[in-house]
Amino acid sequence: MGRFVGVGLIGHGFMGRAHSLAWRNITLFTDSPLTPVLKAVAGRSEDALRGFAARFGFERYYTDYRLMIKDPGIDIIDNVTPNYMHAEPTIEAMEAGKHVIVEKPMAMNSREAYEMVRVAERTGVINMVAHNYRFVPAIVLARQLIGSGSLGRIYHFRALYLQQSLANPEAPMTWRLRREYAGYGTIADLGSHVIDLARYLIGEVISVNGTLYTFNRFRVNQATGVREEVNVDEGFTAILRFENGAFGLIEASKLATGHYNSLIIEVNGSEGSIRFDLERINELEVHLAKDGELSGFRRILVTQRTHPYLRFWWPPGHVLGWEHTFTHEVYHFLTRLAEGKDVAPEAANFRDGLRVMRIIEAIAESSERGTWVSVTD
Amino acid sequence: MGRFVGVGLIGHGFMGRAHSLAWRNITLFTDSPLTPVLKAVAGRSEDALRGFAARFGFERYYTDYRLMIKDPGIDIIDNVTPNYMHAEPTIEAMEAGKHVIVEKPMAMNSREAYEMVRVAERTGVINMVAHNYRFVPAIVLARQLIGSGSLGRIYHFRALYLQQSLANPEAPMTWRLRREYAGYGTIADLGSHVIDLARYLIGEVISVNGTLYTFNRFRVNQATGVREEVNVDEGFTAILRFENGAFGLIEASKLATGHYNSLIIEVNGSEGSIRFDLERINELEVHLAKDGELSGFRRILVTQRTHPYLRFWWPPGHVLGWEHTFTHEVYHFLTRLAEGKDVAPEAANFRDGLRVMRIIEAIAESSERGTWVSVTD
Amino acid sequence: MGRFVGVGLIGHGFMGRAHSLAWRNITLFTDSPLTPVLKAVAGRSEDALRGFAARFGFERYYTDYRLMIKDPGIDIIDNVTPNYMHAEPTIEAMEAGKHVIVEKPMAMNSREAYEMVRVAERTGVINMVAHNYRFVPAIVLARQLIGSGSLGRIYHFRALYLQQSLANPEAPMTWRLRREYAGYGTIADLGSHVIDLARYLIGEVISVNGTLYTFNRFRVNQATGVREEVNVDEGFTAILRFENGAFGLIEASKLATGHYNSLIIEVNGSEGSIRFDLERINELEVHLAKDGELSGFRRILVTQRTHPYLRFWWPPGHVLGWEHTFTHEVYHFLTRLAEGKDVAPEAANFRDGLRVMRIIEAIAESSERGTWVSVTD
Amino acid sequence: MGRFVGVGLIGHGFMGRAHSLAWRNITLFTDSPLTPVLKAVAGRSEDALRGFAARFGFERYYTDYRLMIKDPGIDIIDNVTPNYMHAEPTIEAMEAGKHVIVEKPMAMNSREAYEMVRVAERTGVINMVAHNYRFVPAIVLARQLIGSGSLGRIYHFRALYLQQSLANPEAPMTWRLRREYAGYGTIADLGSHVIDLARYLIGEVISVNGTLYTFNRFRVNQATGVREEVNVDEGFTAILRFENGAFGLIEASKLATGHYNSLIIEVNGSEGSIRFDLERINELEVHLAKDGELSGFRRILVTQRTHPYLRFWWPPGHVLGWEHTFTHEVYHFLTRLAEGKDVAPEAANFRDGLRVMRIIEAIAESSERGTWVSVTD
Repeated sequence: MGRFVGVGLIGHGFMGRAHSLAWRNITLFTDSPLTPVLKAVAGRSEDALRGFAARFGFERYYTDYRLMIKDPGIDIIDNVTPNYMHAEPTIEAMEAGKHVIVEKPMAMNSREAYEMVRVAERTGVINMVAHNYRFVPAIVLARQLIGSGSLGRIYHFRALYLQQSLANPEAPMTWRLRREYAGYGTIADLGSHVIDLARYLIGEVISVNGTLYTFNRFRVNQATGVREEVNVDEGFTAILRFENGAFGLIEASKLATGHYNSLIIEVNGSEGSIRFDLERINELEVHLAKDGELSGFRRILVTQRTHPYLRFWWPPGHVLGWEHTFTHEVYHFLTRLAEGKDVAPEAANFRDGLRVMRIIEAIAESSERGTWVSVTD
Repeated sequence: MGRFVGVGLIGHGFMGRAHSLAWRNITLFTDSPLTPVLKAVAGRSEDALRGFAARFGFERYYTDYRLMIKDPGIDIIDNVTPNYMHAEPTIEAMEAGKHVIVEKPMAMNSREAYEMVRVAERTGVINMVAHNYRFVPAIVLARQLIGSGSLGRIYHFRALYLQQSLANPEAPMTWRLRREYAGYGTIADLGSHVIDLARYLIGEVISVNGTLYTFNRFRVNQATGVREEVNVDEGFTAILRFENGAFGLIEASKLATGHYNSLIIEVNGSEGSIRFDLERINELEVHLAKDGELSGFRRILVTQRTHPYLRFWWPPGHVLGWEHTFTHEVYHFLTRLAEGKDVAPEAANFRDGLRVMRIIEAIAESSERGTWVSVTD
Repeated sequence: MGRFVGVGLIGHGFMGRAHSLAWRNITLFTDSPLTPVLKAVAGRSEDALRGFAARFGFERYYTDYRLMIKDPGIDIIDNVTPNYMHAEPTIEAMEAGKHVIVEKPMAMNSREAYEMVRVAERTGVINMVAHNYRFVPAIVLARQLIGSGSLGRIYHFRALYLQQSLANPEAPMTWRLRREYAGYGTIADLGSHVIDLARYLIGEVISVNGTLYTFNRFRVNQATGVREEVNVDEGFTAILRFENGAFGLIEASKLATGHYNSLIIEVNGSEGSIRFDLERINELEVHLAKDGELSGFRRILVTQRTHPYLRFWWPPGHVLGWEHTFTHEVYHFLTRLAEGKDVAPEAANFRDGLRVMRIIEAIAESSERGTWVSVTD
Repeated sequence: MGRFVGVGLIGHGFMGRAHSLAWRNITLFTDSPLTPVLKAVAGRSEDALRGFAARFGFERYYTDYRLMIKDPGIDIIDNVTPNYMHAEPTIEAMEAGKHVIVEKPMAMNSREAYEMVRVAERTGVINMVAHNYRFVPAIVLARQLIGSGSLGRIYHFRALYLQQSLANPEAPMTWRLRREYAGYGTIADLGSHVIDLARYLIGEVISVNGTLYTFNRFRVNQATGVREEVNVDEGFTAILRFENGAFGLIEASKLATGHYNSLIIEVNGSEGSIRFDLERINELEVHLAKDGELSGFRRILVTQRTHPYLRFWWPPGHVLGWEHTFTHEVYHFLTRLAEGKDVAPEAANFRDGLRVMRIIEAIAESSERGTWVSVTD
């Protein structure tokens, strides 16, 4: 289980729990060359930190992340804070020589993201944006099929990330609905996943034509009872052109009643197609034209021993859940860290995260101008 | 079964067979106030016409449709020809006082369609575009649910009409791939259905932002062996804005390997959602937020006696097929004809068909200009 | 379309409508060597007969089927009466030299069925039991796959025919719930289909171990308001042994809330499996072990041109309904009639119908004795 | 997180990994009143034990489980050995005053299980058979629906546990295929789950009529290359009668090509039905007759905060996997241990495990005798 590496976590919400679980389970199940040690967690509320640290087994906690960054026992800073806290602590951590992981979306905007890339490249630290859906076994299998040419020439990429959390106009205000904390709305929260997967599965996106929308302009702040303005998008739709000629159609919405966490993907090529829905995370549907009279979408339960990452887990058919994506992701990060290599192309490095931010901004610009917009480097 | 009405069919291909079957079965199963009599079929090839007439029970055939239009025993002209033959014979039929049905898309372009509307309104004949998917029982049920407010405020309409017939670059040239016969490509053939259903289910479309694409620029003409240019679209994608504020996302493609005739629709409202796939024509999925802890998409088998049009057919669970849409459509047409009333809003009249053509043209214009385009009247 | 054959129908209920439609449509769509002419329909109520004959285009009607049987213009007697009327008219028809079709179950009991077989074999007429589900394209494809060895050695056959019509204890009394009219209950009505398909797909059944059950012992006769006893089964379950060593598990129940007409079949072999649900009549699911890492149940939409019977119908993906099974069945009957050949093995002849009755009786005996029972010849 | 309890694990295979993970994660996510400490693991191979202990964080290991049982720091013995090792160590542990968990099936036969019950009741220790599928959230929800009467009177229970691991005749010999190690074959391994769920969801089983089968009589021992006899069942089928009048149909087979871990359950009542498939562990399908025209099976994604056990996990739609059943189970065990109460009826105690063994034996006896067999106490 190799040498130990100290991990410092900034943030301790829902994502903090998911990442902590992954750090803890990595050596139980994988052949990770490094053994993470949960050194410390940083945040603001001492009470919350104390409880979180005790529960997840962190050795200590800091109410000032800057102190944690200076902790020489810490090799990796894992930043799971809200969006407006992504850039600064991550940059400081890199400057302190720490390897870094940051939750998606990488930053508030491409300017921040670009600065993060520059520091990452200057300092040479291993850097990753936690686009965990790249580590769904079914998605990895999909990428292998596309990459091997099994689907032929790719015509279409479609991806819809649908949730229902804002469908009810009475749903409360949250930080994600305010530009000053979130940068963008659903396009940042869910759209960043969709855009990242578009690039991961199909290739580079070169131009976009999209629309952001907000149906419910005001929401009640539950803490204050005050009706506040929603100043970001509730969702978006965009048409994409890929460098390789494929067309993309993407959408993310939190107004999709009946969908809890449904990231639906379909790819059509001249010789085959694949389909995926995150609510059925263990399944990939594959159609191969060569099957002729017996062709039909195959519902593949991606739990065979030889399927991606499944060698670490249970017998076939004993399904995995959402949280396992983080275990795979952390496993990959540690493997690359041990080798001193970049996490790409399997994981999203900061260059990938920057590109996602640029595409988000291009879609937002397209929405304002009502035209196609090229994505700049 | 009421008084007899004479039917004259122009065209005798795949759609001719489907319409003929509907005309023949209408009095077997429904309570139609009129009894259609298959008076004549018109076309060019005498051999083909003779066989078709004998097979489907037409009393006679004409190798010149103009002669058929003059036949005083004929009350209804049903035009199932290729697109370039829609306008002229239909106009002539109306001028001769015949009631008319024309296959979709209504015409080669909105200019032709507008002319058809003018003649229809001047002559006062009953007129219908055969947008048969309005007569799928599940679609009628969906419309009832939306209309009754069961889904709350409508946020999203999505409709994808996917087929695989052109996915193989070796698939041959057809008249549908040539502008001079088809007007437009997949956007006319499949897109017209999608656009019609958008209006039928949600309401008027006021602006569009779309893209037409053609991946395979040349196809071999099987009759001649010559490689010819495809001068229409193989598919399109568009974002729509509806008058009522809803957003639409539509697509039609014949490059979708694994899809044979998959018209997938999803509508999300603040209180519920519906889903449909034409390949499972007897099913409607409905999600109602009020179901709370027990909420989930209900797979409704739309074959109960009280479901739309099911009173005419079999016991619950004895499923219908694609062809029954025509029987329902013809039933509706005859019912309205007996009453002397317009076929709208249940069926598409020529005004509806014209609007569909205008939206197709607006999308094509948007594709060329790369911007949003308002749909004009 | 070959020479004409006269058809006489006994009965004019739900099944009368379905058969009539098939007789009428056969020459519209298939290459049937014979052209059926709807000569007459027989029944008891003159009013009902007059309406039915007019609606479906029968030349005349008889209130005494015996007179119809003597009609020299009639070649085929199609018996769609309730079970207690199956044997006698069919035997009389055969004695009069008519070819015969009888609805399932073939008779009230195996004694009647045996008598019918004897007369059929003595008279040499073409004879068929209308086990129409043998003519679902997906079922034919399933049989081809099993027959070709694609599934390897067959281990399991499972078939459940589930409806909900009796689940509500308040559902009314019908003739199907009285032994004197129906012979047996659900095991005859739905079970006969399941048993017939077991033999059609897998092979001969040699012994059975089953249970019949009736949960709701009394139902109200809606005509009289009187509470009457249900003296047949509401459903049954049985384990089967096939001659080839396979095990079967079959069930039919009308107590299955949520199921309208769900005949669910699964076959597992050493190299593959198939699944089918009659509520999705156009689909067959096929799993082939040889697909290895990409193995999964393929959802085959059985609407390709080369799929069984599909050459007669629409383009791929334009789905068929329940009623088309009768068209295929009648097509097969006429083809064999033209050749002067037995309808087996594709259709069920009277020998097959007899065997089904024997298996029903063996299951009933097993239910009474609580043991395995061998099926006798 | 309350007081600490020491856990000693006997066995360290696949189930040892699953249980260890649950013990480790319990305090990270739940509000367990007790905090388990992984004190020791026992087995035979020192090398394997050393690695397992290090990986999963056990403080020490024993090559003789008897020594571990004497360890005063251990409060709970968790026995995850092969079947032939279930009774003796568990009995010894109870005699030593340890609380006990044993994997299913509880024992080699009902005689052993009965002895275990007697010791458990004499010593008063908390005892549980690890029937983990009682802790699938969807199954708990199903039980609530049945218990509340939402489905009305229960007519049918069907449960099929299908795997494909033995479908290939070349699959190797394992200890599970030898009576001396496993007691029974698939009926013990998978059947015990099905039988336990039958009792958990519906109620007591009073009589059975079933058949055990073995298609492939010999398998090659991969260690020795020798062809050995399979002296247990590869699968079974049985009809059940429940005390409350319901009928059951159960099956377990490892010959079901295409199924990896598919435990399919359906319950039909007079007012509703439920369906479940373990391969889609996060979903429950529910049909309620009261929905009338809009009735259909609802696909409920059982991940809402108020669904069973979901309050401990992620936001709605972020799905759980197979392993979480163990976390819920251990949570329940610790909660009851803290209260000093029996684990039933939510979990299976030794009385439940004994009953399952008696039903297995009754089915085996039924299979030999070919008749119904009453289940004795």
